[in-house]
Amino acid sequence: MTLSASSPVGIFDSGIGGLTVVKAIQSLLPFERIIYFGDTARVPYGSKSQVTIRKYALEDTGILMKYQPKMIIVACNTVSALALDVVEQAGRGVPVLGVLEAGAELAVEHSRNGRIGVIGTRATMASNAYPFAINAINPEVEVFTSACPLFVPLAEEGYTAHPAASMIAREYLEKLLEQGIDTLVLGCTHYPILKTMIGEIVGPEITIIDSAEAVALKARELLAENSLLNVSGVSAFPHLLVSDLPQKFKALCELFLGQEIPDVELMEV
Amino acid sequence: MTLSASSPVGIFDSGIGGLTVVKAIQSLLPFERIIYFGDTARVPYGSKSQVTIRKYALEDTGILMKYQPKMIIVACNTVSALALDVVEQAGRGVPVLGVLEAGAELAVEHSRNGRIGVIGTRATMASNAYPFAINAINPEVEVFTSACPLFVPLAEEGYTAHPAASMIAREYLEKLLEQGIDTLVLGCTHYPILKTMIGEIVGPEITIIDSAEAVALKARELLAENSLLNVSGVSAFPHLLVSDLPQKFKALCELFLGQEIPDVELMEV
Repeated sequence: MTLSASSPVGIFDSGIGGLTVVKAIQSLLPFERIIYFGDTARVPYGSKSQVTIRKYALEDTGILMKYQPKMIIVACNTVSALALDVVEQAGRGVPVLGVLEAGAELAVEHSRNGRIGVIGTRATMASNAYPFAINAINPEVEVFTSACPLFVPLAEEGYTAHPAASMIAREYLEKLLEQGIDTLVLGCTHYPILKTMIGEIVGPEITIIDSAEAVALKARELLAENSLLNVSGVSAFPHLLVSDLPQKFKALCELFLGQEIPDVELMEV
Repeated sequence: MTLSASSPVGIFDSGIGGLTVVKAIQSLLPFERIIYFGDTARVPYGSKSQVTIRKYALEDTGILMKYQPKMIIVACNTVSALALDVVEQAGRGVPVLGVLEAGAELAVEHSRNGRIGVIGTRATMASNAYPFAINAINPEVEVFTSACPLFVPLAEEGYTAHPAASMIAREYLEKLLEQGIDTLVLGCTHYPILKTMIGEIVGPEITIIDSAEAVALKARELLAENSLLNVSGVSAFPHLLVSDLPQKFKALCELFLGQEIPDVELMEV
């Protein structure tokens, strides 16, 4: 397959979480066309099995492939942890970037004391993909993980500054703080929505790694290496596809990206 | 289709919530064979669109129909509200009971002051199916509703007595309490898991209607009317099918039903 700089960057996620990646790509690479698919009919992925997650990942990649992307970004940490090979295979030579590796790399770069905390869905944490990716870069680093299964529904419901959410977050984060970490990876693209609250709990001494921003940096690097970067032109609206509730998604998206967007397209899965 | 008393009672739900119906049926009708399907690969339904919910309901009914049930109980309020006709059509003459009508009837029977509160998922509440069903029985009754979108994840995560859950519940229930209701319908089969907590918030003056118990009473009535009741024999384990994570479901199920159960079968959707 011939890849062209004018082709879009394909991004997919289980739902709205991946919009944090869209936002990061838009601000870093304003001239790239983005095609985004959110599997809102089957969200969430993080509480499901590897078999099911791999099946969904295959279908999601198939949807993006119809638009002949020059790169596929897996904005879902759960898919990055459990099904990146499925996406690579279905991508037939299109470069694939997972949020997970990008987040792991940036975390290792930032940590001074070699003690990194990672939070994510139950499936991502159970896969041990973060400790594996981090230790592949530096085997000396100690990684401490905590599954935060209620963060996705809390984020989707807008409980970003609610005392109940803060109470739940404090319990999830407590055991990581006791380990003396100096870096915390938000290992789920929904979590940046709760970043302010998480930051207040962990305090200013701990660097928070947003895997959405990390993958945007990595995407720029990879596109530049392959001479596929769009460095000028007009910045276009992202093309948004979802498997359910396009109207709700549009409203959330406008809130998220802080800009009006054209209609969101419905794509059956 | 000929219905036989020895045939099983089919029950389906989006996930684990319908086990509250299994439990109620087991205690009221101990000699009935139960076949249960939980769509754990696509849970939750309550935050999705009517089109998607109807599609899933059709497939769920198809799975139960393979076991030639003598009755289908829709243990999911969201499906009862938005897709009961789909189930009836796919059921080809098998009697269908939705939790929603059963809960509505029992609530009208119990209310003294004609002011009934209903809580449920966003989709069920938006459908207005409860006010409609209650006012079809008695048009004088005033119905007040409140969507509680975080109750399903809180129940699935076991936050049954957590102060954060209680804080969230208090906010959801506050406006109903201000309306002077004397009856509160748990319009989602997950909510009985949080019943103690909800009861503490609303106080002993308000009668809580558990739609799982309501539908069990209704099932007994309907089976008796059609001479399909199994009044003796041995009580068998329920036959459990799920679309994902059978092991996790088995563990939850044992916790729920307070008994060991045989393996849970995986059924692809």
